[in-house]
Amino acid sequence: MIKNITQAIAFAPATSANMIVGFDILGFALNDVGDEVTLIKRSDGQIVIDSIESEQELPLISSKNTASIVIQKVCADFRIDCGFSLRIKKGIAIGSGMGGSAASAVAALVAFNHFLEVPLSNEQLVHYALFGEELASGGKHADNVAPCIYGGVTLTRSIDPIDIIKLPTPELQCIVIHPHLVVETKAARGILKPDVAMKNYVMQSANLAGFMAALYTKDIGLLKRSLNDVVIEPQRAHLVPGFYPVKEIALNAGALACSFSGSGPSMFALSETVREAHEIAAKMIEGFEQFGIKTDWWISPISNNGAHVK
Amino acid sequence: MIKNITQAIAFAPATSANMIVGFDILGFALNDVGDEVTLIKRSDGQIVIDSIESEQELPLISSKNTASIVIQKVCADFRIDCGFSLRIKKGIAIGSGMGGSAASAVAALVAFNHFLEVPLSNEQLVHYALFGEELASGGKHADNVAPCIYGGVTLTRSIDPIDIIKLPTPELQCIVIHPHLVVETKAARGILKPDVAMKNYVMQSANLAGFMAALYTKDIGLLKRSLNDVVIEPQRAHLVPGFYPVKEIALNAGALACSFSGSGPSMFALSETVREAHEIAAKMIEGFEQFGIKTDWWISPISNNGAHVK
Repeated sequence: MIKNITQAIAFAPATSANMIVGFDILGFALNDVGDEVTLIKRSDGQIVIDSIESEQELPLISSKNTASIVIQKVCADFRIDCGFSLRIKKGIAIGSGMGGSAASAVAALVAFNHFLEVPLSNEQLVHYALFGEELASGGKHADNVAPCIYGGVTLTRSIDPIDIIKLPTPELQCIVIHPHLVVETKAARGILKPDVAMKNYVMQSANLAGFMAALYTKDIGLLKRSLNDVVIEPQRAHLVPGFYPVKEIALNAGALACSFSGSGPSMFALSETVREAHEIAAKMIEGFEQFGIKTDWWISPISNNGAHVK
Repeated sequence: MIKNITQAIAFAPATSANMIVGFDILGFALNDVGDEVTLIKRSDGQIVIDSIESEQELPLISSKNTASIVIQKVCADFRIDCGFSLRIKKGIAIGSGMGGSAASAVAALVAFNHFLEVPLSNEQLVHYALFGEELASGGKHADNVAPCIYGGVTLTRSIDPIDIIKLPTPELQCIVIHPHLVVETKAARGILKPDVAMKNYVMQSANLAGFMAALYTKDIGLLKRSLNDVVIEPQRAHLVPGFYPVKEIALNAGALACSFSGSGPSMFALSETVREAHEIAAKMIEGFEQFGIKTDWWISPISNNGAHVK
């Protein structure tokens, strides 16, 4: 059942969840930015984190890392008892809103999959990656793990049963700005009201449907008109000083849309060209500087590629 | 500005609003069933209803009919002062949930449009038809007038400004069952709670997006999985005795989906073939009979054609 190899390395991309109008259901993958996990076969049955390369200090405790948690779970389910050592290279800061917990889990699972004679399906990978999300945020949300595995833009129609639809990948550039603030996913979820006003539900539905139509018809005007969040963004904007001014700066600089990446604090914006993306990024960074906030930033196309073995 | 003709006749189809997951935003047009309005030029500047052919008794009062209301409005705006007589043939019962108020208004407007040297755009027709909907239901909702004008399946992304997107027309049969109960749109709207639970908002969004993907990819399985209303239907089901048993009968008979047409009391179901449609219709009618409720029924493909001059 297990191939006769000693190690596998996989890369899983950063992802941006929600995509403005698809709270908990939409997400997309970035290029190049992401986490890398090396899985090395052991013989003592242990799941051990050997090392974590990261700008943040992260504990080497298997029960607290999404990568090791999901490997423990999948090994238990498939009765694979050799054990694995994990070497994790974090390209995504935890708490940045770029799917860092999902990427570590998915990279580990994709590396694990390479050991199997009969690999797991994408749905099975989602199933296991969700245990990592549960650890990280307290809930099973597939809006990061789905694009991380499938690539492109994904719709999570359901997680029970798992029903992921890969949507058309628009040829757009994505600017991600990570302000140096920590907003925990649990906290960002905790501030949301338990209800949505009917009027906002209707408006957001209309925009979600407009965005879906825009993806399938490549109608950039419709995409721009539709990417407007009246439900979640207004409840979270206060978590990031300068959110609205920076958003306005991005839109004035030509961004098609701009909002939180996932639950924040990172913001993302979309543009049609790389040149525009650089202009938008520069102005957003400058915008945050005026609020005394330092930033990291990335520019990447929305990538059609999901996690893969290296 | 006005052509030298004396009369025009237009037909506007029955429509079904909401389409299960698109409350206030989605709708589709039926074939053949609908209202017909003849507009005859006068010279005294009056807008007068000459006659209404209908199974229901409807008043010949211009200020209480959606057809005459919208003609009054458009004539005033465009300073067309000849006046018109209206002859209305109602194919759709008022209060049936099949877009009867929209069809009368749209048929009148399309007939009116035929008099113009430079006809109104579809967006302008929607704009004027909405005054009829306001009269009929107290609110400007375009989920009937849009498919009535454009045909097929439409998304009303916004009514201010008017932004209607014509979606792909699925090759499906629609069964409409009109139980002989009166449910007024205003009452059916009035019972809705002002808020939607976040959990249901997310689930309904996922199904709406799934349905949109299904329309563009012609994925009948996805369409079936997605057409499930967790927001509106549970709040209105009690308005129609036998709603859930009849729905179950329809699904067991092979319907892809079944729910209210608009705000009810009509129910609609979808099927892939005409044969199935007849089986489903027969069983739904029988189901209502067991609750002592008489019904009218129609079977029609989802029609790609909107209102048109005859």
